[in-house]
Amino acid sequence: MASQPSISYSITVRLELPAGGTAISALTTAVEEAGGIVTALDVTASGHDRIRIDVTCAASDTDHAQQIVEALRGLEGVAVHKVSDRTFLMHLGGTIEMASKHPIRNRDDLSMVYTPGVARVCEAIAANPEDARRLTVKRNSVAVVTDGSAVLGLGNIGPAAALPVMEGKAALFKRFAGIDAWPLCLDTQDPDEIVQIVKAVSPGFGGINLEDISAPRCFEIEARLRDELDIPVFHDDQHGTAIVVLASLRNALRVVGKDMSSVRVVMSGAGAAGTAILRLLLAAGVKDVVVADVEGVIHRERPHLHESLVWLAEATNQANLTGNLKDALDGADVFIGVSAPNLLTGEDVARMNDDSIVFALANPVPEIDPGEARKHAAVVATGRSDYPNQINNVLAFPGMFRGLLDATATAIDDAMLVAAADAIASAVTDDELNANYIIPSVFHAEVHSAVAGAVRHAAERSGSVVDVATGVTR
Amino acid sequence: MASQPSISYSITVRLELPAGGTAISALTTAVEEAGGIVTALDVTASGHDRIRIDVTCAASDTDHAQQIVEALRGLEGVAVHKVSDRTFLMHLGGTIEMASKHPIRNRDDLSMVYTPGVARVCEAIAANPEDARRLTVKRNSVAVVTDGSAVLGLGNIGPAAALPVMEGKAALFKRFAGIDAWPLCLDTQDPDEIVQIVKAVSPGFGGINLEDISAPRCFEIEARLRDELDIPVFHDDQHGTAIVVLASLRNALRVVGKDMSSVRVVMSGAGAAGTAILRLLLAAGVKDVVVADVEGVIHRERPHLHESLVWLAEATNQANLTGNLKDALDGADVFIGVSAPNLLTGEDVARMNDDSIVFALANPVPEIDPGEARKHAAVVATGRSDYPNQINNVLAFPGMFRGLLDATATAIDDAMLVAAADAIASAVTDDELNANYIIPSVFHAEVHSAVAGAVRHAAERSGSVVDVATGVTR
Repeated sequence: MASQPSISYSITVRLELPAGGTAISALTTAVEEAGGIVTALDVTASGHDRIRIDVTCAASDTDHAQQIVEALRGLEGVAVHKVSDRTFLMHLGGTIEMASKHPIRNRDDLSMVYTPGVARVCEAIAANPEDARRLTVKRNSVAVVTDGSAVLGLGNIGPAAALPVMEGKAALFKRFAGIDAWPLCLDTQDPDEIVQIVKAVSPGFGGINLEDISAPRCFEIEARLRDELDIPVFHDDQHGTAIVVLASLRNALRVVGKDMSSVRVVMSGAGAAGTAILRLLLAAGVKDVVVADVEGVIHRERPHLHESLVWLAEATNQANLTGNLKDALDGADVFIGVSAPNLLTGEDVARMNDDSIVFALANPVPEIDPGEARKHAAVVATGRSDYPNQINNVLAFPGMFRGLLDATATAIDDAMLVAAADAIASAVTDDELNANYIIPSVFHAEVHSAVAGAVRHAAERSGSVVDVATGVTR
Repeated sequence: MASQPSISYSITVRLELPAGGTAISALTTAVEEAGGIVTALDVTASGHDRIRIDVTCAASDTDHAQQIVEALRGLEGVAVHKVSDRTFLMHLGGTIEMASKHPIRNRDDLSMVYTPGVARVCEAIAANPEDARRLTVKRNSVAVVTDGSAVLGLGNIGPAAALPVMEGKAALFKRFAGIDAWPLCLDTQDPDEIVQIVKAVSPGFGGINLEDISAPRCFEIEARLRDELDIPVFHDDQHGTAIVVLASLRNALRVVGKDMSSVRVVMSGAGAAGTAILRLLLAAGVKDVVVADVEGVIHRERPHLHESLVWLAEATNQANLTGNLKDALDGADVFIGVSAPNLLTGEDVARMNDDSIVFALANPVPEIDPGEARKHAAVVATGRSDYPNQINNVLAFPGMFRGLLDATATAIDDAMLVAAADAIASAVTDDELNANYIIPSVFHAEVHSAVAGAVRHAAERSGSVVDVATGVTR
């Protein structure tokens, strides 16, 4: 599975070369022969003899980018100057900023945005604290909170190195749901401290998005914050993924004509995402699930069962299967992997039931090569953007929080998560649905507002909302 | 000292009244007779018999606005509909937002702002943590941190009610210095917790602006954070005020032709602002200061001297004066009040030295009526915007942080504060300087960049900056 040249590994190389002859065509040939893709050629200076060109090209990774530069350096008459990386250029100084909603042109503006006028707004909130949801940014703001312990596939890289991801997340909140999110990268990995800090900063935010916090600490942190706060708390790595998996499963089952309540599901991975997916599948009506982790199939009698798995063992594997992941796959209808690369082969998928469904979500390298899986399974999805059916939580979290904020929700329940999944699934119409299109693009025109509407209604039905006018939780 | 109608107490009243006759002129007369000022008349609907008008007018306070509405209600044939408050309208949903710096139009944009491209940026920071100052919003961001314990003149109104002020502050950071500030309103007033929380959130910010935290907790919190953090920490209520007072004093002394090192200064108030002003005056070369608080003049033998005042008693009042504030004023050159309303009369000022200077900064009601003070003093300044010479920390904090961020400063010292004050003072040229113009407007075209440049140079001279390329603190 060689990775393709991608814009996310795009570089711009400034070159100087002879103005005449075949120098420019030699240039593009050199990039292509090195396996890169030229996406732009800009002449930035030109003279009688020499010409200066910025060549932008996509590479497949950092080493590959370096090989392309070396190939260019090897061309006769070509001088390589600055090499810049488009992604790094985009992140220089960060990708987000704070903006003022009103111009401050003169004393009058100043006296309303700030003192003395602002004092009356403060007094109104002091008299009726729920007015903060009306008269401040709390109405539309989410804290994106991480401790940097499980960032992307990079592991425990700490809070400062996690910041670019949290900024990107904030940018997506704005792009897809108009939400004002701000990153809080915490320099502690102690659950007690994290809970205490998030509680302390909560007056200024309408919701908390926990991000890239490693299991099992993430479970405790989320559970305690949900208990203690009156704003919704959502660990995206768990519930965002679970929502999109459920949406995808709904549509994959539509493709093969099977029913949620009768399929047998085998899962690989019992971490944060796996646990959340399992919970949501059960809430949505799946009856028969078997989960395997690195030690094999999880069953009630498995020795040394970690306390976090006791609930899982009780809720799954009614047939009390033992053995390993591959054993469990015999005759299964659905495989969902949120675990590790290259665990399965095409033969394993071949032993599944007819019209099987494979979601291989380990990233960047899935549990099984999607091409191999597709030879035997009816529907295949991955977490990658370069295959069909990308399961991407960007489909869930913006609309989820939009709906929660619009409802002035105080909590999140399973019905809201299921509503979000149903809204995503419904964005694919019967006419559009096929094995290579079970899930809409994140750029789908209506999916985010559909999620927001569904979540808002679910929140209002649940009663976990606050009446801003009276400050009373209904 | 009746306060004037102000735009910050501006209301818009929707009225319906007969279309013909003198109804409209009766309207404006009614507002004016009630002491209001009509600033706009908008006809929003018109018919043969009736007309609908939005009248916008400035009142002097909330009660006065109500009186104006009642006056309008009393007019024959006039029906008063909705009354809206312009300041509240401006604060609906908050005054700030988060903005993405780059459009996210398609998959390519997404793959650079977020995954997978962002992973390389994270890895670069993990390898060299100081790169966070280059590749993230940390380069330009300040946390505006409060516990809501001493908000404006409103007292301990708590974190939610403080949020509109912090939003306004963030808006001013952007307006005057291009800084991305985000409010953090903490639901705790425990110094240990505040220190711990600010330390924990510090990876994402290039500076900490403490705001509206009551004394004496603010001293301890700031001192501990300065010790423990590698980004600058600035309690604006202390140092912002102190900078602008020093700038104003420099120019007031230019007006009267006296010297910093030879004047006798009497201060009223030994709280957060008073202490910071005193420290900065001493750093700037003032030799002779006497400070009074509610118990009278502070001297070394005063019984039950609070521990926070011991340093102050040692550093001031070399003549060991006793008695009260009024006694201390005899023959003084400068009075600086940061205390309480109406402590002094014109007679007290008359007993000061010739060409005396009075800074009466209690807000909204100064220590002495500025009109009374001006009868006897050569220069008078207040904290109010409706008198000449407003001492306003908006002159200091934006440029201060701009300079600190530009220098990648790790700490703040007195030399930087003095540099900021000198830059503000220098913004008033010799040709412009007079007793009614010792301090520039916050809208002065160059004052903020002048402060930024002066602070940056002072920081670079101090050595408390980090070399982003190497990560080494010089």
